[in-house]
Amino acid sequence: MRYALYTIGKTQEKYLQTGIDIYRKKLTHYCQLDYEEIKAKKLSDPQQQRELHAKLILDKIESSDKVILLDERGSPYTSLELSQRVDKWQMSGARRIVLVIGGPYGHHQSLYDRADEQLSMSKFTFTHDMSRLILLEQMYRAMSILRNEPYHNS
Amino acid sequence: MRYALYTIGKTQEKYLQTGIDIYRKKLTHYCQLDYEEIKAKKLSDPQQQRELHAKLILDKIESSDKVILLDERGSPYTSLELSQRVDKWQMSGARRIVLVIGGPYGHHQSLYDRADEQLSMSKFTFTHDMSRLILLEQMYRAMSILRNEPYHNS
Repeated sequence: MRYALYTIGKTQEKYLQTGIDIYRKKLTHYCQLDYEEIKAKKLSDPQQQRELHAKLILDKIESSDKVILLDERGSPYTSLELSQRVDKWQMSGARRIVLVIGGPYGHHQSLYDRADEQLSMSKFTFTHDMSRLILLEQMYRAMSILRNEPYHNS
Repeated sequence: MRYALYTIGKTQEKYLQTGIDIYRKKLTHYCQLDYEEIKAKKLSDPQQQRELHAKLILDKIESSDKVILLDERGSPYTSLELSQRVDKWQMSGARRIVLVIGGPYGHHQSLYDRADEQLSMSKFTFTHDMSRLILLEQMYRAMSILRNEPYHNS
C-alpha cells in the first residue's frame, strides 16, 4: 500500500529528525511512504498563510487519495483501534492514504473540506516536530499489529 | 517546586535520550526535578515483576509527596488543562510532585493504591522511552503556560 505524510516546515530538532528517519526506514517493511516536509512560507497574515500552506498540500493530493487530517478535534483511537482503521483505509480502494499534519495556526478550511477523516493523537498539543515522530511510530505500531508482529508488545 | 519522574529501565534509544536530556535541562528553569530510571528487574512471572517494580518506586516516595500515575485509564487533559492541574498540584502543599511511568506489563495495584491522581497522555500506547520524552515536554509546556512564556505558542 502507498502512504504519504505531508507536513509544513523542516524538522528543527536533530534528535527528532533521527527518530523520524528511523521510523521512515522501519515503515519500508510495510508500505511505500511519500514523506515530505513542505517548505514553510511566512506571511504576515495567519489566515493567508494557512490558506497558502493548505494549497501547497492540496496540490500534492489526487482525487483518488484518502486524506486523513491530524487534528485535535478528530477521533481519538487506541493503537489497536488505529490498526483497525488502517486496515479499513487499505481496503477502501484508495490509491494512497495521505496523512496531513498542518503548519502553525491550524488548518485552513479547504483542508477540512478535502479530508476524508480527522484523527487526534492526543488532547495534548505537541510540537510540530514531535507530532511527526509520534505519528510515524503509531503508523508503524498499527501495521505491526495488523501483521501480528512482535513490535507492539515491546 | 520540587518534582520527580520515576520510570523503570534505561532509555534504550539514543535520540530519545538526547530529547529527554534537553527537556530535563529546560525544566531546571522552572523546578527541581529528581529524574530516575530505576534498574529493571527481569522475573519470569509478570505479576511478581510488576510488584517488585512498584516496590522499588514506592521506596522512593514519601507520605507528603503527591503521586501522579501515568495510566491510559487516567484523565486526558489538553495542555492548557494540564497547566491548570500543575498549578493545583503546586498549591496543594505537597513536598514533591512525583510522576510515575510504569514498566512493561502495566502497574501493580500497590501503585494505584498510593497514587493521588491518574493522568493519561493519549489513548495511543507509546514506547516507554517515548512516553518519557512526551511527558517531560508536556510538563515543560504546562509550566511555560503558567508563566505565560512564549514556548507553548511556538
